[in-house]
Amino acid sequence: MQLISPTDSIFLLGESREHPMHVGGLQLYQPPEGAGPEYVRDLHQAMIAHTEFQPTFRKRPATIFGGIANVGWTFDDDIDIDYHLRRFALPRPGRVRELLELVSGVHGTLLDRHRPLWEAYLIEGLNDGRFAVYTKVHHSLIDGVSALKLTERTLSEDPADTGVKVPWDLAPRQRPGPRSSTSPGVLSTITGTAGSLARLLPQTLGLARAALLEQQLTLPFGAPKTMFNVNIGGARRVAAQSWPLQRIKRIKAVAGVTVNDVILAMCAGALRTYLLEHSELPDTPLIAMVPVSMREDSQDDSGGNQVGAILCNLGTNVDDPAERLAIISESMCRNKKVFSELPRPQALALSAVNIAALGLGMLPGYVSAAPPPFNLVISNVPGPRKTMYWNGSRLDGNYPMSIVLDGQALNITMANNGDNLDFGLVGCRRSVPHLQRLLGYLEYSLKDLERAVDA
Amino acid sequence: MQLISPTDSIFLLGESREHPMHVGGLQLYQPPEGAGPEYVRDLHQAMIAHTEFQPTFRKRPATIFGGIANVGWTFDDDIDIDYHLRRFALPRPGRVRELLELVSGVHGTLLDRHRPLWEAYLIEGLNDGRFAVYTKVHHSLIDGVSALKLTERTLSEDPADTGVKVPWDLAPRQRPGPRSSTSPGVLSTITGTAGSLARLLPQTLGLARAALLEQQLTLPFGAPKTMFNVNIGGARRVAAQSWPLQRIKRIKAVAGVTVNDVILAMCAGALRTYLLEHSELPDTPLIAMVPVSMREDSQDDSGGNQVGAILCNLGTNVDDPAERLAIISESMCRNKKVFSELPRPQALALSAVNIAALGLGMLPGYVSAAPPPFNLVISNVPGPRKTMYWNGSRLDGNYPMSIVLDGQALNITMANNGDNLDFGLVGCRRSVPHLQRLLGYLEYSLKDLERAVDA
Repeated sequence: MQLISPTDSIFLLGESREHPMHVGGLQLYQPPEGAGPEYVRDLHQAMIAHTEFQPTFRKRPATIFGGIANVGWTFDDDIDIDYHLRRFALPRPGRVRELLELVSGVHGTLLDRHRPLWEAYLIEGLNDGRFAVYTKVHHSLIDGVSALKLTERTLSEDPADTGVKVPWDLAPRQRPGPRSSTSPGVLSTITGTAGSLARLLPQTLGLARAALLEQQLTLPFGAPKTMFNVNIGGARRVAAQSWPLQRIKRIKAVAGVTVNDVILAMCAGALRTYLLEHSELPDTPLIAMVPVSMREDSQDDSGGNQVGAILCNLGTNVDDPAERLAIISESMCRNKKVFSELPRPQALALSAVNIAALGLGMLPGYVSAAPPPFNLVISNVPGPRKTMYWNGSRLDGNYPMSIVLDGQALNITMANNGDNLDFGLVGCRRSVPHLQRLLGYLEYSLKDLERAVDA
Repeated sequence: MQLISPTDSIFLLGESREHPMHVGGLQLYQPPEGAGPEYVRDLHQAMIAHTEFQPTFRKRPATIFGGIANVGWTFDDDIDIDYHLRRFALPRPGRVRELLELVSGVHGTLLDRHRPLWEAYLIEGLNDGRFAVYTKVHHSLIDGVSALKLTERTLSEDPADTGVKVPWDLAPRQRPGPRSSTSPGVLSTITGTAGSLARLLPQTLGLARAALLEQQLTLPFGAPKTMFNVNIGGARRVAAQSWPLQRIKRIKAVAGVTVNDVILAMCAGALRTYLLEHSELPDTPLIAMVPVSMREDSQDDSGGNQVGAILCNLGTNVDDPAERLAIISESMCRNKKVFSELPRPQALALSAVNIAALGLGMLPGYVSAAPPPFNLVISNVPGPRKTMYWNGSRLDGNYPMSIVLDGQALNITMANNGDNLDFGLVGCRRSVPHLQRLLGYLEYSLKDLERAVDA
């Protein structure tokens, strides 16, 4: 039995029916020209032909004294692949809407701790001929960024490459530096950071809070209490849509801001419309927690290693989109400065954003009368920069599906995918009604920004 | 909190990844003439419009000291219907085979104890235009016979009756005699018997064993150890097919036996072929455990309340189908006699067949070197005698999906449905390979019997 690290066990112990602690990803694929009606079925056959499983995909909490204790890992030798990989189809009329409805259902269910903590779904029946793969992996095994990277490693830039790679038998990447032999090796830097955080525990929670408070001082107001900052139920709704990166980059260039600023402004406008529609718009601006890269040499702000978190004033109380963009840009800039001036342990304590969010979520009274430190997480994670193919099928959409928590009923995470930016929204089904309307509001919001910079 | 009865808690405590303790049912429906492409979608809407839930459908094990303890029930007030009722479709080519593959997957997964212990799946996409409903309910809530009866209560004999009834908000039936107010009332007599068994515990196991041994004495051999009597894995395969009852009744009439005798002979021939194919046919005959009605006035042997269990020599060592039928008929007759002569407590101890089977399964060494008391359960449960309709859709198939256990890797259960007898087979995916071939062998076996009586 391998002991579960304190960091990982947070995700096991913190899990309940209302708080599944898995990260998900939804990939949309366009089959190659001339793919027959049995294409997806053949793909399934090729997938299940992979009968080697890396340790991450054989890992589950060990049974002790007849019950599942979350103190040790055990590794299954006998994987029921038919359990972990399922072949589904969409009910009529087979639109993306039916796909998201299906994914909403499976994203909301707990992983079975009697089994290795992952499931994958190969989904056909989209009326436009595309198919989808939805994957969920427990956060104690892998974080969302690493899960997306693992998916990326199954892809090829070459549409003629018809090998069918699967995440579960990718050989571990060789990495410099000492690593435990049982470490799956697929974990990225962020998990390395989480590992070092584990050594900081239990001080981490206090440090994270202190660092957040320090950033909050630079904000004009604390985060208001909104409809998103409530206790959540057990059901989820997900939404997903792609936007051309070019549209965002044009606004960035004209307005002289960063890509992340434009994305945040796009979200801010959509959230404002949504809250107005529900008569729930607060007088003071919403505060987003934005994971950012800590590497100072990185000028690339459209993703990167998420090893820091910045609080951003979303300016949702302001009607003018240009003014909102300016507020966001200034807030990001100011708080990036605070962040870079933080002593490293405190900056590190903000790392691994989900741990920080979860840590705060575990502070007593967090969802009570006290105002939340932030209203939602908006996270931009790295995805492929080029058009990628899986067995000749083009990756059309690459939507991260993250975690919502008590006090954080909505999450917006986006990933690159070639020339697109793909948004994945996850909300508590009860607290965030009509989540899919946010997609339309994101488009309106982007149009508003386009009009503003063209004015 | 309502205390869980000892009988019910057996099904909770006995559950593991390899032994899910739920009973399932698969119904196949033919939509009415003129049903549009949105028929199933509208049906789904009509189903989720039922927002009242009877206690059975709100029941789950209570959480005590942060963990799920199987000592008390709690009743959920907030049911996520989107969790419990899911809308699925079949992947291409949408044959019954794809349906059974999907049902195999969901029949093998554990119910989530954080939720009321039931799930239902509305499945479209069969290439012949039909649709299906698969339901699973934990055995601690309801037994298989009662579950089928509950389904039957949602149906109508009138194809023009377009009301959409759902099991979860059927008002409890009024029953004579005292019943606890928290009793769902949908439980049939068999559960009443189980209730009285609970008061007999822990003597029940010993009694059941004694009664079985007494029956065994009338058999020429003990049950051989077969490929079905092994430890099972966590994955399942299900198979289902309907046969016209008329074919079975004709053999019964010509051979002067009972309907159950013919059904058992049909199974025996199929099992013989299957075992021969795997070079696993034992020299001595397989022994089936056959639940039967205990009511002596009942001459109706094609179902009824399953309140007794008889051991039957299946004559699988005999090649001639007519001879096999004669052996089975004599064995049933002889053991029915033993059974009716048993003192009532001992007969009762054989009641509620699953409890007995489970009880035996829990005896140490049961699956070890010692021969099993029987090789498989073959159970004929009551279903509708007439053609039934649900919202105008004709019930085409009504397949029970039962439980397999360590030592009992195969289960055959059949139910009436109008003019048909519908077989539902459940097997451990690992121990019972190519389960679906048994369907073909059942047909061959029936043809053999037809030829034998016509000779």
